[in-house]
Amino acid sequence: MNKKTVINNLGKIMLVEAVFMIVPMLVALFYREFTDVLYFGGTIAATTLISLLFIRVKGSALNSRDGYVIVASAWLVISVIGAVPLYLSGAFKDYVGALFEIISGFTTTGASVMAEPGVLGHGMQFFRCFSHWIGGMGVLVFVLMILPMENDSSMHLIRAEVPGPTAGKLVPRMKSTSRILYGIYTVLTLSLVAVLKILGMPLYDAFCYSFATAGTGGFGICSEALGKYNSNAIEIAIGIGMLLFGINFNVYYMILLGKVKDALTNEELRVYFGIITFAVVSICINIYHTVGSVGDALRLSFFQVSSIMTTTGFSTADFAAWPQFSQHMLVFLMIVGACAGSTAGGFKVSRIIILWKSFISEIKRAINPKQMMPIRVNGSVVENKTLQSAKVYCAVYFIVVCLSVLLLSLNGLDFTTNVSAVLACFNNIGPGLSLVGPTANYSVYSAPSQLLLSLLMLTGRLEIFPMFCLFAKSAHDR
Amino acid sequence: MNKKTVINNLGKIMLVEAVFMIVPMLVALFYREFTDVLYFGGTIAATTLISLLFIRVKGSALNSRDGYVIVASAWLVISVIGAVPLYLSGAFKDYVGALFEIISGFTTTGASVMAEPGVLGHGMQFFRCFSHWIGGMGVLVFVLMILPMENDSSMHLIRAEVPGPTAGKLVPRMKSTSRILYGIYTVLTLSLVAVLKILGMPLYDAFCYSFATAGTGGFGICSEALGKYNSNAIEIAIGIGMLLFGINFNVYYMILLGKVKDALTNEELRVYFGIITFAVVSICINIYHTVGSVGDALRLSFFQVSSIMTTTGFSTADFAAWPQFSQHMLVFLMIVGACAGSTAGGFKVSRIIILWKSFISEIKRAINPKQMMPIRVNGSVVENKTLQSAKVYCAVYFIVVCLSVLLLSLNGLDFTTNVSAVLACFNNIGPGLSLVGPTANYSVYSAPSQLLLSLLMLTGRLEIFPMFCLFAKSAHDR
Repeated sequence: MNKKTVINNLGKIMLVEAVFMIVPMLVALFYREFTDVLYFGGTIAATTLISLLFIRVKGSALNSRDGYVIVASAWLVISVIGAVPLYLSGAFKDYVGALFEIISGFTTTGASVMAEPGVLGHGMQFFRCFSHWIGGMGVLVFVLMILPMENDSSMHLIRAEVPGPTAGKLVPRMKSTSRILYGIYTVLTLSLVAVLKILGMPLYDAFCYSFATAGTGGFGICSEALGKYNSNAIEIAIGIGMLLFGINFNVYYMILLGKVKDALTNEELRVYFGIITFAVVSICINIYHTVGSVGDALRLSFFQVSSIMTTTGFSTADFAAWPQFSQHMLVFLMIVGACAGSTAGGFKVSRIIILWKSFISEIKRAINPKQMMPIRVNGSVVENKTLQSAKVYCAVYFIVVCLSVLLLSLNGLDFTTNVSAVLACFNNIGPGLSLVGPTANYSVYSAPSQLLLSLLMLTGRLEIFPMFCLFAKSAHDR
Repeated sequence: MNKKTVINNLGKIMLVEAVFMIVPMLVALFYREFTDVLYFGGTIAATTLISLLFIRVKGSALNSRDGYVIVASAWLVISVIGAVPLYLSGAFKDYVGALFEIISGFTTTGASVMAEPGVLGHGMQFFRCFSHWIGGMGVLVFVLMILPMENDSSMHLIRAEVPGPTAGKLVPRMKSTSRILYGIYTVLTLSLVAVLKILGMPLYDAFCYSFATAGTGGFGICSEALGKYNSNAIEIAIGIGMLLFGINFNVYYMILLGKVKDALTNEELRVYFGIITFAVVSICINIYHTVGSVGDALRLSFFQVSSIMTTTGFSTADFAAWPQFSQHMLVFLMIVGACAGSTAGGFKVSRIIILWKSFISEIKRAINPKQMMPIRVNGSVVENKTLQSAKVYCAVYFIVVCLSVLLLSLNGLDFTTNVSAVLACFNNIGPGLSLVGPTANYSVYSAPSQLLLSLLMLTGRLEIFPMFCLFAKSAHDR
């Protein structure tokens, strides 16, 4: 491993974070929250100093392994720094709580240890929601966009950070890829801000909720969250917004290029909308008798399905009180997640498609061992490498979930709480069921458990491999 | 597919089942339960008649696909027939209940819809426990042992029926393989009968419990089950017995051949005992304060771990009342299961080993893409085919569990009950948690759900592929 290169790149990333933090500092200044301005300013100054020292270390070109190591350590470093202003604000019991909160922000999980986020100042609130927006598309993708870097090197980074099995094939040149990605992302986000403003949301709130929606994060700015506006139109707008950010960004790119037909016949997209339609209708039928009107049942069902499947985690209803089938359906959607190449987490629809097709092909092979059929998605053959890692991902997913649930059980909480907490953090969703349900928060867990859950959020966001590569590193440096 | 061959083989299997049923009929006769004798006699006569008609259909040699179809349909047929005497006895609410019970028997699951199995006569009881013993080693393995069949054909059958990824490599000639397997199985079972008799169990009970232990099934003969004997020695004997039947039978075969060192350094065996030791010790520490004495805690912990990990499902303590960590640990063991090539169900220790090694190798490849390392178990390279199917198995396992839990949720029961019921049936364990816990039974589920759980038991016992091949059949007969 090339340690100098790693340090050099970490320096660049820290500098970008320092620049990012200027935005919430200005917001705090605007609202005359001078202590918070001081906390941001101090963190920015210290970060800039260290980052400049790091950037002076000159490295060479990256290889694939350095890519993983940089991505994993970058996410750790920006989290550790990002937690500082939150901790200084005094709203958290300990530093671990603040770290949990910011990791939840950057990974767009949206799980919180705060019962009332409203105690934070406007600048801190903004920072908390802004972290969703930055984390959604990827911190490193942003770095690639603005800093000079070799094309080969950046490919290793983007591959390690953008979720899903098909990432990084958008455009041959990585620098333009990240510009296009962030371009689409910014336009969609600003459109949502405009829509929410028109529907009557204050501008500040509209920004915060648009960030949380765009990153499919889910942080609210007060304990009532969206209930505060009491507007069905806002609920539906955010519901649709979440759905759109759960779509693979390649689809938008193809639409930009005028290939609308190709975009709309995308296999993952069709399965994604298929699952959503099925879930919305079946939950609507299931909750109809408790809600009373078809319209309300449909709206509540649509919002919750969109929120959980895109792993955002906003809630406009206490779904922990819904009938069992609906709750089970939501847990199922939690696991599935949205499309690859979107800002959403989860297992990803395309992986489910790949695994399902592998299974069908395995059955065909059992029936007729001589038959060899390549697996196709969107008409083109899936590479053996992609196939392999989708399968290994599934296996490791299973093992990580089991072991984490076992470790969490030492807190003495019930099975449903633990399983749903692990799934909600690992898939970057946010709320779980039972004691971590939509009306509760993660402060029920001890500090070591919060650390474990934070690690799970990072591991889930980076899709397992980079985190494990980081920890496997020393064993292979012999 | 060669339909004639399938019918011919089903006929042979039905005939074997008819012969097997003579044993419980004689037991019923001995205890002067004449109505039950009539029920058994009638079923035997009808089965024999049909089977003779089937055997008259002459088929040709088997291919791999016929193997899967025969195995899956054979298990369905023997279950449908086996449920008849139980249903006639009048102890079940409906035929579905009786079917659930006998499928639970043959698949060695041990899940029951009966609150008090003691209402059955001695013959019926014996039949119920005997089904564990028959199902444990496999109905078809037995058929292969006694009936003439081509060597090639029998390999396809044995591969589809014996659990675990390494089956069928014991001895080149399949006929001798099945004789050796059943020989070891019979000797171990009779030894256990002798031990239990010496420890003070009545002979009839000793047979029933030995069958249930040998098949790692778990049916008891009264609602108190082993508690009736109030003997720590019996508890420990059965605990050790379960452990022994959870070991790969290849290990015993190697010991028979004098290769004791090879047998004891078997990788799967070491991991198996490693997991057991860890689980027993950690649960013992966890429950110590509720039990009071180290000895008792160790005994209870050992028995429950052995019972759950080997997927037997006997219980001498209401573990649903244990601390959360212990309950979570037991669910974890449920999923892992015991060794491949044993009578136990579950995911299998060897599959976990293979998946773990694939994961490590994938990480190494991420770090250094040029490095290619074969995966070794017990020093020899795992075939790519075995590797593939272990991974696909994992993926399908995950999908089947999720979808089944979703379907079960329509009953309106809680999450813990549904998840544990699906895992307990699919892994052929028996008792789950909450409403299907060790002191409860599966009558809480509706008849359609019982059917679904029965299918899960069969799918789990035959390790997914044969059942899916059966249902996939029509699509490929075009």
